[in-house]
Formats: sequence, structure tokens, C-alpha cells
Amino acid sequence: MIDVANIQPRMLMGPGPSDVNPRVLAAMARPTVGHLDPQFLEVLNDTRDMLRMVFRTENELTLAVSGTGSAGMETCVVNLVEPGDRVLVCVAGVFGTRMAEVARRTGAEVVTIERPWGQVFTAEEIAAACEQHKPLKLVGIVHAETSTGAAQPIPAVSEAVHAAGALLLVDAVTSLGGMEVSVDDWRIDACYSGTQKCLSCPPGLSPVTFSAAAEQAIAARRTPVQSWYLDMTLVRKYWGSERLYHHTAPVNMNYALHEALRMVLEEGLEARWRRHTAAHEALKTGLERMGVRHLAAPEHLLPMLNAVAAADGVDEAVVRKRLLDEYGIEIGGGLGAFKGKAWRIGLMGESATMRHVEALLSALREILT
Amino acid sequence: MIDVANIQPRMLMGPGPSDVNPRVLAAMARPTVGHLDPQFLEVLNDTRDMLRMVFRTENELTLAVSGTGSAGMETCVVNLVEPGDRVLVCVAGVFGTRMAEVARRTGAEVVTIERPWGQVFTAEEIAAACEQHKPLKLVGIVHAETSTGAAQPIPAVSEAVHAAGALLLVDAVTSLGGMEVSVDDWRIDACYSGTQKCLSCPPGLSPVTFSAAAEQAIAARRTPVQSWYLDMTLVRKYWGSERLYHHTAPVNMNYALHEALRMVLEEGLEARWRRHTAAHEALKTGLERMGVRHLAAPEHLLPMLNAVAAADGVDEAVVRKRLLDEYGIEIGGGLGAFKGKAWRIGLMGESATMRHVEALLSALREILT
Repeated sequence: MIDVANIQPRMLMGPGPSDVNPRVLAAMARPTVGHLDPQFLEVLNDTRDMLRMVFRTENELTLAVSGTGSAGMETCVVNLVEPGDRVLVCVAGVFGTRMAEVARRTGAEVVTIERPWGQVFTAEEIAAACEQHKPLKLVGIVHAETSTGAAQPIPAVSEAVHAAGALLLVDAVTSLGGMEVSVDDWRIDACYSGTQKCLSCPPGLSPVTFSAAAEQAIAARRTPVQSWYLDMTLVRKYWGSERLYHHTAPVNMNYALHEALRMVLEEGLEARWRRHTAAHEALKTGLERMGVRHLAAPEHLLPMLNAVAAADGVDEAVVRKRLLDEYGIEIGGGLGAFKGKAWRIGLMGESATMRHVEALLSALREILT
Repeated sequence: MIDVANIQPRMLMGPGPSDVNPRVLAAMARPTVGHLDPQFLEVLNDTRDMLRMVFRTENELTLAVSGTGSAGMETCVVNLVEPGDRVLVCVAGVFGTRMAEVARRTGAEVVTIERPWGQVFTAEEIAAACEQHKPLKLVGIVHAETSTGAAQPIPAVSEAVHAAGALLLVDAVTSLGGMEVSVDDWRIDACYSGTQKCLSCPPGLSPVTFSAAAEQAIAARRTPVQSWYLDMTLVRKYWGSERLYHHTAPVNMNYALHEALRMVLEEGLEARWRRHTAAHEALKTGLERMGVRHLAAPEHLLPMLNAVAAADGVDEAVVRKRLLDEYGIEIGGGLGAFKGKAWRIGLMGESATMRHVEALLSALREILT
């Protein structure tokens, strides 16, 4: 049996989790208190306020769901959609595919628009799909596809979706905290993220936010939300001033998120985005010198998730194993269409530093030459 | 804004969370590693093995769901039940009511049998209800009702349920680790628990186990599980040898559960049950001397959750507030039918000690006299 005390630290440069600052780990290890303890309620209030700053929103219904990013995806879908609704999901990678699957399980009619992996949608394509399938309750899209490393142009998509009278759901699991996500300016109606990417908190919670229009859609439902655990009409009564018991909040995970959000705001959102971009540029330059190319088009590259074609003539899994075993560096392999052909290099939160970039480049140089 | 580093410890003697041992907090604060890191996969394998020991089962499908106990309840229900199934839920408190509500949201036909709060079902009552409502897919019951402090006689219930050809679902959120829960001997088909009660780990995960018959029922489903996040047919491929990515496991929460389970098994299950019973007896004797009485019948009292009538002539909420503010002791108030009339005193896991009992009795004596 493993002793957790002996777990060896890694440099986490995969698709998440990212490195966690010792301040956040220390916060998580504070003594557990009750989920109705005034001290903990203060943690929740602060967290809600800080999440609004990080999401750049004034949305009332903003909180951390007690599950990972995939639970946040399901929360948004099952609260907004019910049988009889029509939903359009934009699919250009694993997480768009997942969103469509989650939506199908609500009994809604789900249609998809697809782009090859690594490519992005234009506003015209979205507008045409909205016209073809109207009336639509909801259009869902992944901002930063962790499977491909491409960023979708959310402001343009938003124009098209709202012109069609639909609500816009955006997956910001990978983008939040590492590049601009402006929920109010971009008129996003529902947005979810994860803690373990650019917020650099351990995995286990999912920040979500809903616009006033999304709240109205929830209030106008004809049927109960199919998930009791993720039902925002109930969960919000605990996060709000009623403090009505719903489920026991993951107390220590919320300590960790509180501290991680403080660190994000101490650094400042714009400075944090710049840091991610700078690390990405340095990585890209270094990889290109080795002949390793990004898979997505240059103008749509994500800073925090670099999906690159594995070097010619090497077994990509062997390289990853050597990085982990000999250098303590974790990077990811390809998913789905990119399985066996790609590396996914994360530069997220605490892992978006020149130290990380140089350590990886140096290790890759040794392994590949 | 609160600084989490300044959070004051409490003596947690409410309905959960319970006190967490510093060993468990330290494990949780180990550096986060990837969810496919060989070190972490070893943590998962150990956890599965230890959960089998704690549940007293050889069930293959045994793991920790990435959510709190209520997510475990929903996991069991939505995996076993689909539209068209008939489900019987035994309701004698808040959590039975919740189970029926979760089941209704699957589109199943849900019938209930009810007992007044704090009372227990007989095998004859369950058998009669099964006969009346057959054919039944599933019968659900809460072993230890945290809202009332009464223990249901699961072995007798199991006989009646299996005689009727139904599957048995048992909520062991509060009982597991504090009193006997023998999944195989009692022929329980699906069982879920929480980490923050008698396992004394922070809240955030839900151990679950499914019998071979339950697995067959899942395999024979006509429709997909309505929750993608909680779909055991997918989650098991990550916990099993395939290691197929589903969602990013809450890595540090799993560290904590691993250490908490080690501590449970180091103590030994029987010794741990005895410790809970001894603490309960001491508390009961002390409270009776003050004229404070348990609400459930003496022969059905839970050791770890003592629901008692609040002392005459005092505002129960004021007493709780004074306990918290002046003594640092948290106890719970009544839920539902017992709101405003009861205290719920937890003696769970690390909180089931004579030191806790004496501290509470002494504080109550000062406040009430």
C-alpha cells in the first residue's frame, strides 16, 4: 500500500491538474469546520464575490458546484434544458462531443454543428446553423478545447446566438484565469469552469455563473431539474442568504478555492493572461526549433494548452513516460482523433512559468536527440 | 475578506462533518499529481480495496464517487432506475424523503411507505408494501437517519425485499465506520456513504458499492444513465484496469480518503464500532442526568447521531450559538418535523471520544443551569 506522505511532487504540464501553490495546499489543510459555521459561510461569500471578479460578471447566481468541471457542464445543461427543448452544440473536439452527449441525456432534441478537430467556427456558420434549427433554447460551445488547443471566437459566436434568440452556454474549464473570459461583455448566459486548470487549485469544484436570462429560463421550467444534486434552484438557497441545507459542502476544497482565487486576484487577471501568453510564446519558439509543430492554426492557438504533433519517428507514449520517470514532468497524450499522434502540453496557472518551459524543453532535447 | 489561515478549529459534534485527524489533513495537503499518474492510480487501487473491507464486501464495482453523500445517493438511484421502473422508498425522516425525490426525477414510478419520524420499519411492513406494489425494481431505505437518530433493521428488511425479487438500496452515509454495515452478509445490492461522518475525512467524496445483481441490472438498462457525470458504466472504466479518462478525479480529496480509510482499518472496524457505542452510552447517561431525552426508541438508537429533545424553556438555537461561540463546540439543530425542537449531537469518527462527550456535557451544564 502506498503511503500518501511519500507521494513525489511532479511538474504538472499536462491538460490539468496544474501545479498547486503551497499556500493553496496549506489552506486546504486547515481544520474542517461545519458547513453552516459562520466562518465557512464567510468563505462562501468571499468565493462568490471573487468568482464574479474572475468571470467578469455581476451575475447573482454565481457559485462553485460540488464536483469537477464535468459536473459543472452537467449542471449548466440540466438546469437550462428539459425534454422538448432543442439544443445546438458546436463540436470541434472531445469536450464539445461530451456536451452534446450530456444534453442528449436530458431528453432534449440535440443537433450539432461540427468542425474538424483544431479548427474554429465562424459567426456565419453558427448563424446559419441557428437559422436552420430554430427555434433553439440553447447553443453550447467550448471556449478552449483541451483536446485540440484551439480557441473559439466567443464574442462573434455570441452575436449569432443572441440574434437567433437562444441562450449561450460556454465551457471555460480550461480558459478561465489564463485568457480573457468576459461573461457580461460577451453576453454569455451560462458558463462553467474547473478549479484544476488556470486557477491552480486541486480538482474537485466547478465554478458556474448564470445570467438573468438564464435564471428566467430556469424559473420557467415545466419539469424539475433531472439532477437533484445539481439543481440550482435548491443549491442557490444554501449559497444565498437563506442558508438552507441542501448537501454538505466540500469544506476543505472550498478553502483551497478561496485561497487560489485570492492569488489570482492578487496577481490581477490581465497580468495573469500576459504570463500565460509569454510562457506559451517561449514554449512555441523552443518547440519549433526542435521541429515540433502546433496542431491548431497559429491565429487560434490557446496559450495554456499546446497540442502539438509528436516528433517524427518516436513513440509518443515512451517520451511521456521518460519525461515523468526521469524528469518528474507530466505532459498529456492525444485524445480521440489525436490519440497516439500528439502531445498536450499545459501551461496553466502556477505551471505557466519560464522555469516550467525551460525544464520541459531541456528534457525534450535530451530525450529526442 | 476572511483569511482561511485564521479559521478557528471547532469540536465538530453535529450531524457531520466530524473532526478530521491531522494525519488526514496532512495527506490532503500533499502535492497534487495527475489523475493518471502511477502514484495516484495506486492511491485509487488501495482505496477500492480498503472500501471493500469497510463495506464488508467483495463487490467488484466499489469506488468513491466525485461528489458528497447526496451525489452517492443520486449515483445509486440513477444507475439502477429508469423510466417505467417501479421503486419503493421507505421514508422515516429527511433522507428517505430525499431518496424518494431523487427517484421521482428519473421518471420512475415511485411509491413510499412511511413511519413517523424516529420510528423503524418491521420486516412485515416492508413485505406487505412489496406485495402491494409488486413488481418492484428497487427498494430504498436509509440505515441511519441523521434527522431522527434511529437505526432501521436492514437484515430483516433485506429478507423481505429479496423475497419480493427487488434490489435493495441502503443509505449508509451516517452508519459506515461507526456501526455494523455488512454489505455481503446483509445482501445489500447498492450502498453509498459519505466521507465526513464516521470515516472522519472532509466532505467531498461518496463511497459506493454495487452487487453483481445490481451490475446486471445496470447492464440490462434500456436507456442511458440520465447523469453522465455519475454514470457507473463510464466511471468504472477509469477506476478499473482500462484507466479510460472520464473526468479528472479530485486528487487531493482522494489522498484524504486513502489516509482516513487506513486509520479506520488500523483501529479495526469492530473496535471502532465499540468506541462509538461507548461514547454514545456516556453521552446518553450524562444527558439523562440533565433531563435531556433521546427522541427515538431506546432499542433503535444510533450511536453516532443523537437526536434529543431540546431542554424545556430554552431557545435551542441560542444554546447552539453559545456552544459554538463560547466553547467552540458545534452541534446540530432539528431538521424538518424536529426543527426548533431538537438538538442533533454527532459522535462520529474522531469525534466519538470521551473527551468530546465530557466537553459537551460540561458546557451544556454551564449553559442550562
